[in-house]
Amino acid sequence: MAEKITTRAKDYSQWYLDIIKVADLAEHSDVKGCMIIKPYGYAIWEKMKEVLDKKFKETGHSNAYFPLFIPKSYLEKEAAHVDGFAKECAVVTHHRLKIDENGSLVVDPAAKLTEELIIRPTSETIIWSSYKKWIQSYRDLPLLINQWANVVRWEMRTRLFLRTTEFLWQEGHTAHATKKEAIEETERMLDVYSDFAEQFMAMPVIKGLKSESERFAGADETYCIEAMMQDGKALQAGTSHFLGQNFAKAFEVKFADKEGKQDFVWATSWGVSTRLMGALIMTHSDDLGLVIPPQLAPIHVAVVPIFNNAEQLELIKTKLDPIIADLRATGLTIKFDDDDQKRPGWKFAEYEAKGVPVRLAIGARDLEANQIEIARRDTQEKKTVPLDGLVNYVNDLLNKIQINLFDKAMKMREDGMKKVDSYDEFKKRIETEGGFYLAHWDGSKETEEKIKNETKATIRCIPLDGDKEEGKCMVTGKPSQRRVVIAKAY
Amino acid sequence: MAEKITTRAKDYSQWYLDIIKVADLAEHSDVKGCMIIKPYGYAIWEKMKEVLDKKFKETGHSNAYFPLFIPKSYLEKEAAHVDGFAKECAVVTHHRLKIDENGSLVVDPAAKLTEELIIRPTSETIIWSSYKKWIQSYRDLPLLINQWANVVRWEMRTRLFLRTTEFLWQEGHTAHATKKEAIEETERMLDVYSDFAEQFMAMPVIKGLKSESERFAGADETYCIEAMMQDGKALQAGTSHFLGQNFAKAFEVKFADKEGKQDFVWATSWGVSTRLMGALIMTHSDDLGLVIPPQLAPIHVAVVPIFNNAEQLELIKTKLDPIIADLRATGLTIKFDDDDQKRPGWKFAEYEAKGVPVRLAIGARDLEANQIEIARRDTQEKKTVPLDGLVNYVNDLLNKIQINLFDKAMKMREDGMKKVDSYDEFKKRIETEGGFYLAHWDGSKETEEKIKNETKATIRCIPLDGDKEEGKCMVTGKPSQRRVVIAKAY
Repeated sequence: MAEKITTRAKDYSQWYLDIIKVADLAEHSDVKGCMIIKPYGYAIWEKMKEVLDKKFKETGHSNAYFPLFIPKSYLEKEAAHVDGFAKECAVVTHHRLKIDENGSLVVDPAAKLTEELIIRPTSETIIWSSYKKWIQSYRDLPLLINQWANVVRWEMRTRLFLRTTEFLWQEGHTAHATKKEAIEETERMLDVYSDFAEQFMAMPVIKGLKSESERFAGADETYCIEAMMQDGKALQAGTSHFLGQNFAKAFEVKFADKEGKQDFVWATSWGVSTRLMGALIMTHSDDLGLVIPPQLAPIHVAVVPIFNNAEQLELIKTKLDPIIADLRATGLTIKFDDDDQKRPGWKFAEYEAKGVPVRLAIGARDLEANQIEIARRDTQEKKTVPLDGLVNYVNDLLNKIQINLFDKAMKMREDGMKKVDSYDEFKKRIETEGGFYLAHWDGSKETEEKIKNETKATIRCIPLDGDKEEGKCMVTGKPSQRRVVIAKAY
Repeated sequence: MAEKITTRAKDYSQWYLDIIKVADLAEHSDVKGCMIIKPYGYAIWEKMKEVLDKKFKETGHSNAYFPLFIPKSYLEKEAAHVDGFAKECAVVTHHRLKIDENGSLVVDPAAKLTEELIIRPTSETIIWSSYKKWIQSYRDLPLLINQWANVVRWEMRTRLFLRTTEFLWQEGHTAHATKKEAIEETERMLDVYSDFAEQFMAMPVIKGLKSESERFAGADETYCIEAMMQDGKALQAGTSHFLGQNFAKAFEVKFADKEGKQDFVWATSWGVSTRLMGALIMTHSDDLGLVIPPQLAPIHVAVVPIFNNAEQLELIKTKLDPIIADLRATGLTIKFDDDDQKRPGWKFAEYEAKGVPVRLAIGARDLEANQIEIARRDTQEKKTVPLDGLVNYVNDLLNKIQINLFDKAMKMREDGMKKVDSYDEFKKRIETEGGFYLAHWDGSKETEEKIKNETKATIRCIPLDGDKEEGKCMVTGKPSQRRVVIAKAY
């Protein structure tokens, strides 16, 4: 690779951008704040979508599609919701352009909309205006719908994948007859997200509840999964909201139960976005480039033949073709790279930069010895192994890589989780060491605000799996029943 | 079904809307011109996407994602392009709302964009502004990219699936070193579309070229597939454009060939949209509801047990469970409907309305006789068959249904294709009979315009497979080398 990667030690933010560049994942577009997801980056996102979509369907959800536009008046219906989103809305005001007397293309003032349309920042309002028509009786419930869509939240400071004005996501929107069922759904989808993060992204997450001030605008309770990045900062990787009856009340969605009694329905919404791409990058990648867990890799194995002439290449191909076919038959995507315009060393560096989990290299002498060089991306170990049994060897190795990446990430997180009881100590350590701090908090907005203002760290979540533990708030000394996770965050 | 379907004979337009309603495919949203694609409709669209996406990848294309927003100045760069789209653009002018002194939510005048953004009506301009950065040498070509996205074209008169302000589609955008390669790509993708239409949608199509006035805004040549609907009208089901060097010139995209010589690259773009849903509905459905070809059916088989009590149901289940498992193992989606709140007759009508290709029904006496009733949706034939061998029987039947639907649609189209040589005869017949007319045309815009103004019919295409045939334009008597297809169209 001609392009150099800044090391994490030198400049972590630049390293992140360099990884995206050398792995050819995405780039900024000329439209402020919007990104272009390039083919290799999109292929990883497609893998994520495929796995998640399957999990959503297995848990009884169907996909549907609702309009991109939300009438301004809809946004207003839920008070907390509009407060949360009004400041970052792209607004459509006209529906036509025209050529003016100077020959310039201008907005046609005659084509002004009577009511402005907002590009959806999230779809609760447009969806609940439909649910009003769809739900009459308990027999229409639960209503379990997901949408894959683009959304827009106007951002002043953007960063590829992590914070962009337009991003891709899925948003689940469900309606239930009882509060209990809605809470179960909220928790079920949080589990779907955490299973996906851990089993596919190889990224350990902490499941928890957000504090009141960090809740989704319009939710009674926001559940989240929080992951630790290599710089010790937290990244919120997915959220699942229990919306209570807030949207049902705002849009007057009632149902008749078995006895004919009318009540407002209970709601949830949940989403993950292309932000997960940023999480994936920052969990596993190193100073050589991207590292992708095999479960999400668009290419599992890159095969680099080393040859001086067409005849040598032909011999390698004759030997490898059936083995590659067998590898493909096990569900793997194999790239056989016989491009004679690039030298093997260049190719090795390229597949390393792109995070391909396994690379095979074979030359004339290997061929004679019936062997092949196998290199794993995660540890950079190289080994020469017999061609016989290669299919099993590669599959085993991919499994090992998947597990190793999770274990490594888990170790990093465990090393980065610290209990702290003194606010002074916390302030010092969050500045110098970073990481996640388990601390007692008195539950008040004021204390939360103080921590945020003084340290830039926020309460990431109240962990669901955390033990009850009597203690005193590290800031105010007031009583607390459990520790919360505090960290700086993306 | 409680809901009645207007017959085609009585009111074809209303029939179309009734089918969409009873099959629960889509509905109008409160946002003018935008539709909501409901779960069952979206499931069919997902099937279409899956098949097409596979075909695109098999022909070497990768997916990517480009911004929703296009700066106004980009749209201006290609003269024909802006002419074609300026009048139907949704324009974003502001990026923030605020609460005014009266407590109302209003557009914040302080958040006016310095340059207005257009919601993409199609993405050539935003994509070619990227290709400029991506393409330097012949080694970067061909560049074969597809995008699945939503687009917006402001429509005054809308119709579900066929013409909506926002719609879902895919748009391929490719760049090539030579004119020849670009034309080959344009034709290759037209073939992908026609194969998809015929083999999956069971919808015969005519491949052809558009006349100059019907070309895509910015194309040198537009290829299309045209299908005949049951009312004899044409529906353009997909287009593939040879863009020449128009966008390369507008965005200054040059490449160095092997000898280092610089030249503008050659381009194509091609797309199909949720309009195909309208085509699918109008090709096969009947007065009882939707008819879906098995290749695109979200549910292949509905199984309706007929029982008076839990014990009877249990007996049926015990017998059918392994057979249903075997059916599923062949890749079929089976719905076993034991809802005891609905009567069997109601279920039959529901699956008929939803176009499920095969319905099975089984009661206590069938069970004793080791048999089951099988009904096919396309012909409404019912038969009682042995339970042994049911898996093969059902799979064969689904194949037969797929073929029968295509044959039926082909027969309809053949019956509706008429040669005509006199303009007077044409005017009379297009009004009374509808259908597709093969007629000689002198190739002039004036004649095309005259036909359109006088009959509302348009030149749908110059068929690619049409024989050369010397003749005289039916309107002007001027010489013509081949017949073109003229019809009223959606």
